[in-house]
Amino acid sequence: MEKSNFKHILPIQLRFNDIDQFGHVNNSVYFSFYDLGKTNYFGSVCPNVDWNKDAIMVVHLEIDFIEQIYSTNRIAVQTAVTQIGNKSFQLYQEVIDQNTQQVKCSCKSVMVTYDLENHCSKPLSEDWKEAICDFEGKDVRRK
Amino acid sequence: MEKSNFKHILPIQLRFNDIDQFGHVNNSVYFSFYDLGKTNYFGSVCPNVDWNKDAIMVVHLEIDFIEQIYSTNRIAVQTAVTQIGNKSFQLYQEVIDQNTQQVKCSCKSVMVTYDLENHCSKPLSEDWKEAICDFEGKDVRRK
Amino acid sequence: MEKSNFKHILPIQLRFNDIDQFGHVNNSVYFSFYDLGKTNYFGSVCPNVDWNKDAIMVVHLEIDFIEQIYSTNRIAVQTAVTQIGNKSFQLYQEVIDQNTQQVKCSCKSVMVTYDLENHCSKPLSEDWKEAICDFEGKDVRRK
Amino acid sequence: MEKSNFKHILPIQLRFNDIDQFGHVNNSVYFSFYDLGKTNYFGSVCPNVDWNKDAIMVVHLEIDFIEQIYSTNRIAVQTAVTQIGNKSFQLYQEVIDQNTQQVKCSCKSVMVTYDLENHCSKPLSEDWKEAICDFEGKDVRRK
Repeated sequence: MEKSNFKHILPIQLRFNDIDQFGHVNNSVYFSFYDLGKTNYFGSVCPNVDWNKDAIMVVHLEIDFIEQIYSTNRIAVQTAVTQIGNKSFQLYQEVIDQNTQQVKCSCKSVMVTYDLENHCSKPLSEDWKEAICDFEGKDVRRK
Repeated sequence: MEKSNFKHILPIQLRFNDIDQFGHVNNSVYFSFYDLGKTNYFGSVCPNVDWNKDAIMVVHLEIDFIEQIYSTNRIAVQTAVTQIGNKSFQLYQEVIDQNTQQVKCSCKSVMVTYDLENHCSKPLSEDWKEAICDFEGKDVRRK
Repeated sequence: MEKSNFKHILPIQLRFNDIDQFGHVNNSVYFSFYDLGKTNYFGSVCPNVDWNKDAIMVVHLEIDFIEQIYSTNRIAVQTAVTQIGNKSFQLYQEVIDQNTQQVKCSCKSVMVTYDLENHCSKPLSEDWKEAICDFEGKDVRRK
Repeated sequence: MEKSNFKHILPIQLRFNDIDQFGHVNNSVYFSFYDLGKTNYFGSVCPNVDWNKDAIMVVHLEIDFIEQIYSTNRIAVQTAVTQIGNKSFQLYQEVIDQNTQQVKCSCKSVMVTYDLENHCSKPLSEDWKEAICDFEGKDVRRK
């Protein structure tokens, strides 16, 4: 995926205890960044998001840690929906250095929409699918 | 990999704020469990581990989230080194329910040993390689 | 309060990223320890605890950080209810080194019981009050 | 302390997993906000801050939790140094709702400056004292 394809970018505010004893951002903290990116993506792109009724759950992740992140870096997370299936969809995300545009970490994930009231996965609504395709500027529905 | 192959298992103490607003353990917390598993593995299997000089860094992760973890679950993390290369090595880890043995989440990772003083990756020492093969009960060095 | 008065003690499992760049357990992590202590206290001492209906909320905290905690320390959190009022009650807690019995940190807190369904504070039930006094071995109700 | 006295305010970016199963920001997360506020304060007010040599450690905290924080709140942390002693100094901080100016939580803390190389507390430098008094617009040194 070309970096220029990202339509959604969110600057991240690092916290003091994101940094571990090795002096860099701890691996486990990256997932907070990806979480923040996707929560913000769906909240701003999709209509009627209500995290009390609907949840989005990760079922599979593949992550490449490319460069370490230090406390002085100004970072951001970029998020794109790359494919929408029936019950699942795929995200591609990058954590980048905002000054240098260097990619610090990339993440492909497979997500499912989950019905919190009935405790089962459910299809992505047509409203959401359309809003996502509109936002991404292309039809990302799996044929 | 067969579950019975794991030689290293560590019970995990869940914390109150591991649980998020969806009522299950938040995804980002799983990585603390994997971190705990591998830190404990190397500390108990390998000789002369000093995290002030040496670091182990993740370069690639693949994770399958299979079942949700709830606050009442008694969980543990299982860790095995599955392959040792020159500068990198591979781990396979599972988070399981200790009562049911159900696998909640599995994780394959590629790690490198890192020299914190000289800021570069470095080969795994022969001592560590031998200790790991001894512990795993087989030669996991890449041929 | 005399240390020997504690009837409830819970060993704590430290996590790798509890340690910050200063090489000690980060201050913000201590509150997870106190949370863990009190959740465990109420779960084991009081009847019919259901965190989906009832919450216990902190309204005031006073903490003394006495000694730093390092990754090699074996620590535990000690918890006692020291006074029960009408809607509020007081806890006294200590994080200690299990080997040396040294007190690392102490915490006085004022808590209220909260009704999650009706979004208001509510009195501690008589059942809970009795169970707590029984457990502590003395009447801690405010006269 | 009057709210209008704060010269330092830092907006906080909430993270998805700051919210716990009670649907509000977990208590233990507030300390990350206070940490962020004070790290930013010293980094921007004091000359030559180097967290690899100097640390600022909390020795005492008093916190009032006034209102719950929800995921939709836009919050900020306000920080002031209220008194400088020889080796210790006092901070007063508030977490506020940026829209309503409502105070969510307030925190008084006593801090010491710590020499990470020699592992002992040390006096606040004259440079820092002057910079802080200049910033606060009054002499906060203890007479």
